[in-house]
Amino acid sequence: MKNCKKIIATSLLLTILNPVYADDKVVPYPDGYRQWNHVKSMIIQPGHPLAKTDEGMHHIYANEGALEGLKSGVYPNGSVLVYDLLAYIVKDKTMQEGERKLVGVMHKDSEAFAETGGWGFEGFAGNSKTGRLIKDGGTACFSCHAPHKDKGYVFSNLRD
Amino acid sequence: MKNCKKIIATSLLLTILNPVYADDKVVPYPDGYRQWNHVKSMIIQPGHPLAKTDEGMHHIYANEGALEGLKSGVYPNGSVLVYDLLAYIVKDKTMQEGERKLVGVMHKDSEAFAETGGWGFEGFAGNSKTGRLIKDGGTACFSCHAPHKDKGYVFSNLRD
Repeated sequence: MKNCKKIIATSLLLTILNPVYADDKVVPYPDGYRQWNHVKSMIIQPGHPLAKTDEGMHHIYANEGALEGLKSGVYPNGSVLVYDLLAYIVKDKTMQEGERKLVGVMHKDSEAFAETGGWGFEGFAGNSKTGRLIKDGGTACFSCHAPHKDKGYVFSNLRD
Repeated sequence: MKNCKKIIATSLLLTILNPVYADDKVVPYPDGYRQWNHVKSMIIQPGHPLAKTDEGMHHIYANEGALEGLKSGVYPNGSVLVYDLLAYIVKDKTMQEGERKLVGVMHKDSEAFAETGGWGFEGFAGNSKTGRLIKDGGTACFSCHAPHKDKGYVFSNLRD
């Protein structure tokens, strides 16, 4: 009984000390996204307004929830979209994939990320799973996505 | 017993009449390939030796067998690789996906396609599932793939 009380007390203390809400607001690295559904690709070239951060060839991937959302416009919690940005190499009249520049993530959790349309935004530098790039809680990302409210705040359209 | 004999006789007759080998040599349309694994992408521009047929943005997709082959170099029968060729649109310092030009397919069946390295080659025009483009049994396709024998006759490499 004494041990039991100690365990309960320790659990309560850990619960108080543990920044549960902060953890909930952390967008997890999207493990395995390269095997998810490839939605579309695009190249951003020098001179584009976003070239400074986004020049390269990017691919958009959707997990099963996000694929459902792309079809219906309603994204269930747990939906994840990935913006996989690679450098491109111009060579012999081709443009080929180069090194990874960043992995951008939109992670749907309507409670944790209520302030940014229910989406958590994160960027992981290069091939790192821990090098987080977003410092403002995703508010800058969201400001660009906000006009797409009617599409669940998502830019991409599903194509055949 | 009489019925049984009749069934066996009918089966034998159907087996003889049915052009099994001919059908086996037809590469099926790769239904659902857009949900397969996206391997890589590339743009071929005007001036490239293959530009006449392949100018555009292409994406390579692999089914589970082909993904295994990309890892091991050995492709089990049933492996399928898709070369999804889209036009590209140059717009506002971007290159975006346009209309589908063709769906190229490599389908592994070491018996049916023994003469072309165990791979059946086919191309489907645009969004058609029936408009077949390959008229030579894939021999021209195979002549370009042949030097890659050590990689199972596949050009693509698996990347992270």
